[in-house]
Amino acid sequence: MALIVQKYGGTSVGTLDRIKQVAERIAAARKSGDHIVVVVSAMAGETNKLLGMAHQISDNPARREMDLLLSSGERISSALLTIALNAIGCPAVSMTGRQIGLQTDNTHTRARIVQIDAERCKSVLKDNHVVVVAGFQGVNQKGDVTTLGRGGSDTSAVALAVVLKAERCEIYTDVDGVYTADPNMVPDARKLNTVSYEEMLEMASLGAKVLQLRCVEFAKKYNMPLIVRSSYNNEPGTLICQEDAKMEQPVVSGIMYDKNQAKITVKGVPDQPGIAANLFNALAEASVSVDMIIQNISAEGHTDISFTVTTEHLADAMTVTKKVAEEIRAEKITSDADIAKISIVGAGMKSHSGIAATMFNTLSRENINIMMISTSEIKVSCVIDHKYTELAVRALHEAFDLKSDPALQGNNVASAPDKKMKAL
Amino acid sequence: MALIVQKYGGTSVGTLDRIKQVAERIAAARKSGDHIVVVVSAMAGETNKLLGMAHQISDNPARREMDLLLSSGERISSALLTIALNAIGCPAVSMTGRQIGLQTDNTHTRARIVQIDAERCKSVLKDNHVVVVAGFQGVNQKGDVTTLGRGGSDTSAVALAVVLKAERCEIYTDVDGVYTADPNMVPDARKLNTVSYEEMLEMASLGAKVLQLRCVEFAKKYNMPLIVRSSYNNEPGTLICQEDAKMEQPVVSGIMYDKNQAKITVKGVPDQPGIAANLFNALAEASVSVDMIIQNISAEGHTDISFTVTTEHLADAMTVTKKVAEEIRAEKITSDADIAKISIVGAGMKSHSGIAATMFNTLSRENINIMMISTSEIKVSCVIDHKYTELAVRALHEAFDLKSDPALQGNNVASAPDKKMKAL
Repeated sequence: MALIVQKYGGTSVGTLDRIKQVAERIAAARKSGDHIVVVVSAMAGETNKLLGMAHQISDNPARREMDLLLSSGERISSALLTIALNAIGCPAVSMTGRQIGLQTDNTHTRARIVQIDAERCKSVLKDNHVVVVAGFQGVNQKGDVTTLGRGGSDTSAVALAVVLKAERCEIYTDVDGVYTADPNMVPDARKLNTVSYEEMLEMASLGAKVLQLRCVEFAKKYNMPLIVRSSYNNEPGTLICQEDAKMEQPVVSGIMYDKNQAKITVKGVPDQPGIAANLFNALAEASVSVDMIIQNISAEGHTDISFTVTTEHLADAMTVTKKVAEEIRAEKITSDADIAKISIVGAGMKSHSGIAATMFNTLSRENINIMMISTSEIKVSCVIDHKYTELAVRALHEAFDLKSDPALQGNNVASAPDKKMKAL
Repeated sequence: MALIVQKYGGTSVGTLDRIKQVAERIAAARKSGDHIVVVVSAMAGETNKLLGMAHQISDNPARREMDLLLSSGERISSALLTIALNAIGCPAVSMTGRQIGLQTDNTHTRARIVQIDAERCKSVLKDNHVVVVAGFQGVNQKGDVTTLGRGGSDTSAVALAVVLKAERCEIYTDVDGVYTADPNMVPDARKLNTVSYEEMLEMASLGAKVLQLRCVEFAKKYNMPLIVRSSYNNEPGTLICQEDAKMEQPVVSGIMYDKNQAKITVKGVPDQPGIAANLFNALAEASVSVDMIIQNISAEGHTDISFTVTTEHLADAMTVTKKVAEEIRAEKITSDADIAKISIVGAGMKSHSGIAATMFNTLSRENINIMMISTSEIKVSCVIDHKYTELAVRALHEAFDLKSDPALQGNNVASAPDKKMKAL
C-alpha cells in the first residue's frame, strides 16, 4: 500500500464537471489500494478574477491582503472536490495550508516553506480518508495566511510528498507530459517517458511551462519522483527522476524556445575594472533579471556589452542602462526586442562532444544568424532573430532526430525509471 | 475616543463600487477619532453561488466542507475592503474568524460561539489600524473552520462588540432602520428611533428580516446598544437598547405580518392525557418547529387540535401528523396554507389594558375572521385568511396611530435613548 500525492491544476478542476471527473479518477486510485493525498489549485480563472478585483480597487494592494484574497480560490476548489469525492462514496477530508501544517516565512505572495507538520494529515490517512489539500498556501509564524507564488500548488504538492515520504508525486495538467519540443510548433514532437531533474530544471528555466522551476528544485533536492500527466486521459505521462548513472542519457532530450526576450547592447564602454559590476548591480537593484551576458574583446580601450532581459523588463532595463551609460561615458545604447532564445537540453551532453557544433551548423545551414551563445553542462542556448524561431526549432528537432523514440533504438532511456512507471 | 463595531451586509459590499463607498464611510468615522472594527458579510450573491455549486455536486454535502466553502466569501470581501481602505490612506488590517480568536463548538454550519480571544485585535487597534473582520466564521477546537448559520455576521459583530467593550454595534444594511410596518405595504409607515431589545426580539421572531433573532438575543444578554442603519445614506437609523424604566414605552411599536404560515387541524382527538405530547414530540423529532397551538374545549370525550408551522415544513408536518393521527385514532386532518399571521408588538402593552381588544375590534370592523390567537407580554398575534393581510396591516397601523411620531406628541419615546443617538 503506497502513498501517492496527486496535484490537479486549475484547468483540471476548472468546472464542476471536471471536478466530478477528477473525483472519479481519485476514487479509482484509492480503490486500487493506495493512500492518496490530493493537492488542488484554484478553479481556472478564479485567481485572475480575484486579482482583477483587487487591482480595480488599488494599484498597489497590500501583499498580506492579497494572500488572504487569493488563497480563497484553493479553499473553494478543495471543499468542492471533497464534496464530490464524498458524493461518490469515497471518504475524503479537506485541509487548508494551515491544517496541513505548512509553515512559511513572512514573505507575503511568494513565501518560502519553513516546515510542514503533517501529523493531522497522517492521522486522517490512517482513517483511510483521502486528504484534499488547498494548494498554494501556508501560514507564517504570526498565523497570517501566506501564498507560495506562481506555481505554488506544485511546490505544496512536492513538499507534502517529501514530508509524507510518498512513493511519488503526480502532477495532473492539461498536457500529456514533457515533449521534445512544443507540439504546436513541431507536429512530430514526441512525449518523453523520462527526464532527469537536471534536464527538467533547464527546461523549466528556459520557458517550459509544464512545471515551475521551484517545484523541480524541491523534487531534485529530496529525490522525489515527479510524474507529469494529463487529467483528461490515462496516458502514463513523463517521469522526472534522478539521473541513473547506469542508464545512457539521451544526448538531446528537447528543444526549447523563448520569444519573450529582448537584447540590450552598450557600445563603447571604457574597458576598466568594475564597469560591468556597476551596470549589473544597478539592474539588480531595479529588480531586472538579466539572463545572458556577452562582453566582446576590447579594442582601443573600449568594449561592447550585450545582455538579454525578458520583454516585460525591457523598459525598466533601458532606463537603468541609460543612466549608468551616462555615468560611465559609454558611446551608445541599442535594444532589440525582436529576438528569440533557442535552446537544446540533454543530460547526455556531459559525455558527448560536438553537440554545440551540430546546433551551430544546423542554424547556419538554415541561414540563421547567431547573435549570442550561452552554455551549461547540459544545454546550449542561442539568441537569434525571432522570425526564425519556428524554422530553428523544427530544424534542430530534425537534426537531433528527436521524433524517433531512442528507447526503441535500444540506445537510451533506462530500465530503472521504467520499473517505476509500472506502478502507474 | 470610543470603540465602535460596524457591520456591513452583503448588499452594502455587493460590488467593487459599493466596497469603495463603504471604505469612505469607515475612513470618515475613523477620522472623527473613534476606533473602528468592521465586520463584513460576503458580497451579495456570493454565498448563494457557492451553495449552488456544492448542491450541483452533491445532494447532501458534508457540513464541515460547506463551512470551508462558504467561509471563503467573507474572507474575500474582508480582503477587498481592507485593500480599499489602504487605497484611500486609512490603515487597516483584515482578520479571519480564527485571527479574531472566535472559537465555536463543533456544530458545523450553525456553530455557537464558545469564546473570543481578541488579544490580537486589540493590539492592532492600539496601532491605530481599522480591523476588518471576516464575519460569519470561527474555528472549533480541532482547528476546523465553522460558520455561525444564517445572519451569522450580525452575531459575529455583536459578540465582538461585547468582548471589545465597544460603545455600540452598528448594523449597516439596505434599509433605513426598523419601521412601524413594512413600508412596501403601508406607505405611511414610520421609521422608529428606538426599539427595546424585547420588542426587537418579538419583531425578529415574527418575521422582521432586518436583524436575526440570535444577534438581538446576544445584544440583550450583554446590554450592547445596536443601531440598524443604511449604508446608502446618513440617516441615523434605529437604536435597539435596553428598555428604560423611566421612559414611557409606546403602546404599540409596530405591526408585523408573516404569510409564510400554514395551519393544520386534527379533529376528533380522544381527550386523554399525553395525546398532545405524542403529536408534538413526533413533530419535534422530525425537526418541524410548531408556532401557535390551540386546543378547543372537549366535547363528548373528543377535542380538536390546531397548530401552525411555516409553509416549508407543511409537507413534513402533514406526514408526521397523519402517522400520529392514525395511532391515536383521530377523526380527520385538514390543512390550510392560505393563512397569514398578523402581530402587534409594543413594550407598553405591559402596562396598558385593552390593546388586544382594539386589535380584535379593528379586524372585526374590516370583517376579517380571526382563526387563532396567541399573546405574550408585549405582542398579540392573530391568524387570518392570507388574502386580508394588507388590509389588516393597514387598518391596525391606522388604529394604533403609528404614522404620527409619538415623541412629537410628547407622550412617548424617551430622552435616554435620544441622548445615545447623539453619539452618532
